[in-house]
Amino acid sequence: MSVYLHDIPLEEALLTFHNALEKVNLWQRLESEEIPLDEHAAGRVLSSPVWAKISSPHYHASAMDGYAIKADDTEGALPSQPVILQIGSKATYIDTGDPLPDWSDAVIPIENVEPVDEEGNVIQTRLPFAIRIRAAAAHWSHIRPMGEDIVATELVLPEGKVLRPVDLGALAASGHTLVNVSRKPIVGIIPTGTELISIGEPVHQGDIIEFNSCVLAAQINEWGGQALRHSIVKDDFSRIQSAVREMAAHSDLILLNAGSSAGSEDFSSRVIESLGEVLVHGIAVRPGHPVILGIINADGKHVPAIGVPGYPVSAALTTEVIIEPLLARWLGRPPQHRPTVNAAITKKTNSPAGDDDFLRVSVGKVGNRILAAPLSRGAGMITSLVRADGIVKIPRGIQGLSAGSDVKVELFNSVFEIENTILVI
Amino acid sequence: MSVYLHDIPLEEALLTFHNALEKVNLWQRLESEEIPLDEHAAGRVLSSPVWAKISSPHYHASAMDGYAIKADDTEGALPSQPVILQIGSKATYIDTGDPLPDWSDAVIPIENVEPVDEEGNVIQTRLPFAIRIRAAAAHWSHIRPMGEDIVATELVLPEGKVLRPVDLGALAASGHTLVNVSRKPIVGIIPTGTELISIGEPVHQGDIIEFNSCVLAAQINEWGGQALRHSIVKDDFSRIQSAVREMAAHSDLILLNAGSSAGSEDFSSRVIESLGEVLVHGIAVRPGHPVILGIINADGKHVPAIGVPGYPVSAALTTEVIIEPLLARWLGRPPQHRPTVNAAITKKTNSPAGDDDFLRVSVGKVGNRILAAPLSRGAGMITSLVRADGIVKIPRGIQGLSAGSDVKVELFNSVFEIENTILVI
Repeated sequence: MSVYLHDIPLEEALLTFHNALEKVNLWQRLESEEIPLDEHAAGRVLSSPVWAKISSPHYHASAMDGYAIKADDTEGALPSQPVILQIGSKATYIDTGDPLPDWSDAVIPIENVEPVDEEGNVIQTRLPFAIRIRAAAAHWSHIRPMGEDIVATELVLPEGKVLRPVDLGALAASGHTLVNVSRKPIVGIIPTGTELISIGEPVHQGDIIEFNSCVLAAQINEWGGQALRHSIVKDDFSRIQSAVREMAAHSDLILLNAGSSAGSEDFSSRVIESLGEVLVHGIAVRPGHPVILGIINADGKHVPAIGVPGYPVSAALTTEVIIEPLLARWLGRPPQHRPTVNAAITKKTNSPAGDDDFLRVSVGKVGNRILAAPLSRGAGMITSLVRADGIVKIPRGIQGLSAGSDVKVELFNSVFEIENTILVI
Repeated sequence: MSVYLHDIPLEEALLTFHNALEKVNLWQRLESEEIPLDEHAAGRVLSSPVWAKISSPHYHASAMDGYAIKADDTEGALPSQPVILQIGSKATYIDTGDPLPDWSDAVIPIENVEPVDEEGNVIQTRLPFAIRIRAAAAHWSHIRPMGEDIVATELVLPEGKVLRPVDLGALAASGHTLVNVSRKPIVGIIPTGTELISIGEPVHQGDIIEFNSCVLAAQINEWGGQALRHSIVKDDFSRIQSAVREMAAHSDLILLNAGSSAGSEDFSSRVIESLGEVLVHGIAVRPGHPVILGIINADGKHVPAIGVPGYPVSAALTTEVIIEPLLARWLGRPPQHRPTVNAAITKKTNSPAGDDDFLRVSVGKVGNRILAAPLSRGAGMITSLVRADGIVKIPRGIQGLSAGSDVKVELFNSVFEIENTILVI
């Protein structure tokens, strides 16, 4: 029984994992699917560039409610020297967005004309005999020419774009009714542990409420994946193996939660080994260490399988470092980057020299200085993550920071909230 | 027929609207509902503070795989002067998370003990006769005492919190199985216009592809509401009135899109007037002007009704300024704030003195300077919004900016993307 994990640096672990995925064609975008262009397409990722099928506007359109006229007919019109244009032959009423008649090359907004009767008296009616104009109209004034916004064949949106609400409008305006997006990666999450109970079950001493699968599933969904949660599986090799096999048939990625340390209940690595290959067991990040990266072969299908540490902070943070970039790759979008802020750390911290250390901090403004106060470091302290405004990543090789050191904080909350935080240390 | 809108400043319009809503008890949080604590609770807003029902851990738990012992039994242990503790009477194996036996007050990690047989020979077995220890254990070492993370009765999360994945973990850890969240505001969206066609219908000259309802619905959903889209209604007073009545029965807010200018097809204000009261018609923002704010009375139920301008940029921006804060209020969460960045504007701009002017800009870094380049200003140019990195809000009273002026840009994209943008002007 190997009780020591051989931790390797994070970059090395990721490189090993990505190279192995590449060999089985899994370090690339997943297939795309065609979905209807409606509000539910927001958040999906374009799997190919979109070119305009039609122009927008797709005809010369009036930009105002008013009268379509010929600009030449208004030449020389002045406040003291008005021009009268008869409705029908020289002017026609037009609403905003209506197509311009072929003979017209300008629109005069309704508020700039005097509707008159046959005697030239101003009348308030929507069907006057003529309109009187006291200023010359410029050619193409108050017209939205065809293609003003989008010209047919032009690039509307690039591949890899995460669709925002306004993007949907641009897709529709350019004549699209369906949209090609990357299929959502399906992530099967299997909680393992004889001591685990589900949320809602009665709690007895020694029971551990299983909520990592809930946190992981919410993270996966937030990143554009689709989480599938398996029920709790007891610490039993063959039960865990069956659950992994079963989930692998429906998933692109398997997460085995807990059981990834090297203690007596370490079934995760044995199960992954039995179905494929363990590539990495132990990564030099704190919190996080006992991460397993592997690829299993389920009925001829390669499925990456990750042993996620049981401690909730380790689980949430390693997921972010390892799984978010993998989902980004599969979806064909850039990995996410949190906003950052430079801050001064409020007290001396020690870090293990061999590990990338992820320090949770509370951030606030004191006068003009932004300060980052380290929070509790226990991997079991989910409140340290809940209360944190961000994390400071202290790279391997640095054994600690002295009080007042400049650090870059990756923020969970917006800078706006930070600016409005009163820091109580 | 009034062809001139009486635009009033944005703050005044919002104040009028909010005061009127307050009078009918609609400027407050909506009712709450109880939902299961699972991954789908992410993004919902807590309608009351959450206090811990149980502590976490809810018993003294081992923080490591190892042996539960009494610290006093290891006193004086040194590398050269080991102490032997017999399994059963003096030491018992314990997994991470297991409850500490009553008699124990310390845990020694498995990697720090030598398992030995009766003769004191080191053996590799999980059931040794005894363990040999070469260092004294501190009291409570490697133990997570009850309540280390969360103490029963303490505040776990405040009211108004938008639930993130890790927050779900904290709720579960503190003994909750259900969560009280604000009900999702239901927003009925009614597109009106005889010239409109739905996405996917064949396009003829003069047809306008109706996509505002799709953009608005995606925005509403993003802000935590639930959008209901009505089919297109022709420009006909009684058809629009029926649609509003029908949607009002199922909605907390009605959006009437297009028909809110003062042209021939301005049915929105007449319909709202016929069912209740128009509070504001015309707001001094650019783009945006012809916004209508009203409250209708549908079978005794007060429902705010908003006439959203037809031009897509006006629609998207006025929705953000007027509807996002209303949904925030109804959900009981703070309104959203975009990240901002200070930039120098690349060219002279003119703004109408009486309007708040929302200038779309492209932002990029040139050397060490962040520049904001104004984009096309047409309210019909959805690409100006799609291609924008953010907006600069130029307040009323300022008629323009000279090139190089310092401006604050509210960013659509993250600062990270901006830092990596090469600006082509």
